[in-house]
Amino acid sequence: MIDHLAIIGATGVVGREVIDLVRERSFPAGRIALFASPRSAGEKMNVNGRELIVEAIHEDKLSDVDIAIFSAGTPVSEEFAPVITRNGGVVVDNSSAFRMTPDVPLVIPEINADDIATHKGIVANPNCTTIMMLMAVAPIHRKFPIKRIVVSTYQAASGAGLAAMNELRTQTRDVLDGREAVPKQFPHPIAFNLFAHDSATAENGYNGEENKVVAETRKILHEPEMAVAVTCVRVPVLRAHSESINLEFHEPVSCEDVRAIFTDCPGTRLVDDRAESHFPMPVEASGKDDVFVGRIRQDISLPDGRGVELFVCGDQIRKGAALNALQIAERLVEIAAAT
Amino acid sequence: MIDHLAIIGATGVVGREVIDLVRERSFPAGRIALFASPRSAGEKMNVNGRELIVEAIHEDKLSDVDIAIFSAGTPVSEEFAPVITRNGGVVVDNSSAFRMTPDVPLVIPEINADDIATHKGIVANPNCTTIMMLMAVAPIHRKFPIKRIVVSTYQAASGAGLAAMNELRTQTRDVLDGREAVPKQFPHPIAFNLFAHDSATAENGYNGEENKVVAETRKILHEPEMAVAVTCVRVPVLRAHSESINLEFHEPVSCEDVRAIFTDCPGTRLVDDRAESHFPMPVEASGKDDVFVGRIRQDISLPDGRGVELFVCGDQIRKGAALNALQIAERLVEIAAAT
Repeated sequence: MIDHLAIIGATGVVGREVIDLVRERSFPAGRIALFASPRSAGEKMNVNGRELIVEAIHEDKLSDVDIAIFSAGTPVSEEFAPVITRNGGVVVDNSSAFRMTPDVPLVIPEINADDIATHKGIVANPNCTTIMMLMAVAPIHRKFPIKRIVVSTYQAASGAGLAAMNELRTQTRDVLDGREAVPKQFPHPIAFNLFAHDSATAENGYNGEENKVVAETRKILHEPEMAVAVTCVRVPVLRAHSESINLEFHEPVSCEDVRAIFTDCPGTRLVDDRAESHFPMPVEASGKDDVFVGRIRQDISLPDGRGVELFVCGDQIRKGAALNALQIAERLVEIAAAT
Repeated sequence: MIDHLAIIGATGVVGREVIDLVRERSFPAGRIALFASPRSAGEKMNVNGRELIVEAIHEDKLSDVDIAIFSAGTPVSEEFAPVITRNGGVVVDNSSAFRMTPDVPLVIPEINADDIATHKGIVANPNCTTIMMLMAVAPIHRKFPIKRIVVSTYQAASGAGLAAMNELRTQTRDVLDGREAVPKQFPHPIAFNLFAHDSATAENGYNGEENKVVAETRKILHEPEMAVAVTCVRVPVLRAHSESINLEFHEPVSCEDVRAIFTDCPGTRLVDDRAESHFPMPVEASGKDDVFVGRIRQDISLPDGRGVELFVCGDQIRKGAALNALQIAERLVEIAAAT
């Protein structure tokens, strides 16, 4: 039990999901405070059956926060996370502000929960694409060391926020009605289209999202040299990310061995029915806590069975952001209770 | 100039495009006959400014056909292609009926046009996914031999025909209006969703579409051992396929060397603007003859620069089917004229 939980970015797509999950999972907080930008302040939101008023974030209001979950973007995290930690609180940060900071643990609780204990006031939540991939890849890697990962993503609009999800809906109706698709949130039309993730291309040719996946994977797995090739693509799907993952191993690994891992793997669900052609799909993974794993098969391009391929889908807003953050917060409560 | 061109499956999505392309490219035929199933017979279609009546296909009507372009599915090709060849005509077949038959050339004219001359009456048109991939991969392989291809696809509804395209539109509107998505053509909802290609899963774990890509790639490139790992996925896009392609080479190859190939490569268009984040997209490739190639970058997961990644989009109905078939027919006319 903690006295005071602050949900920062409460009116955004992730913040709203955090609020839902606080109720669903009976998060043990005496008091909950909601913060957002001045623009959204004053909005009333239902939290655990009580009506709370969203406050404009200000450092004077953050003095006695025990845990703060930030889902308001990098600038807000950079400005206000230090306020929380200075006052002895702990930050769970959904932005990319601190993910690669050396003394900030980057955590997926099913994978590297032990890293939380090393925190100095901030625990970072990984990028949603990294989370989906590692929920499937980390348990495999633990048992059968992976030599190289090649992944292509199918990322939902939700990763770009509520306005982007609405743009997908509005623009799709426009196209169906014979009107032109006018992009506002995204740089390109999203209705019946797809495009390379629009984060800027870095010097190495990978875009920002792709470089995040590589760097975060290495940090979470504690494998600073892990070979990861990644292509990030935005698709006209609302809220679940999908990923086509090709794994190369040092030794032969059978797809049966990999499938066996997911018959009992926390946070995942095996969806792999070849006879019915039923595999992970975004519409089925949407709103679910588990990451769906399937299409597990031998890579026929590698000699001696040294490759396995799979396909995953997971709810970008839940496990990709809000749920993972709340799971971290739950661990922080346990740690606080134990000390 | 040939006397008699038959377009079989004239009322389907590919047949209609063949008719458009015959006009657009001034295909040199004295007479054009349109055939379809008895259900579609009697429909009037405009061909080169003349109104033609679609006839029910029957072997008595195929006695003097010089070239027949089949886009009516495997059973129709299996039944009527032998009728054409028996009468001395040549078949260009869009179905998968004869693609892997040893003495049937499987041809993408920009890549292996010379194979056409070896035909025994039938020339097969490759699977659309194979065509898109090889339009980019074959010119690279010719210059820098490829060791292994890992590809994940983003396939449009058009690959499953006109009814599937309509299902994507109708179902999307249903979802936007709050109604349930009811799949009929596809086994799963396609609106705001994606799923593994629904061809049956074979013994090796690959589905039918994936095994086609592997086998056809090897045949077209004359590389019976070419290592290809492929994941085929259907996405809510109307008529252009996209593919995320990872290439591993025997030797280091720079992305500049690969990009240089596409500054002047017939049938392709380089779309690779990192500054503007403008890369190949299905809405831009739709209705175009060229396959768009971009996101050419070094694979950072392979040592010594032995990997390059790229992204392609191409119109599934045009280059993926109708255009490629008509290009083959054009070559057949040239061969006939030269002999």
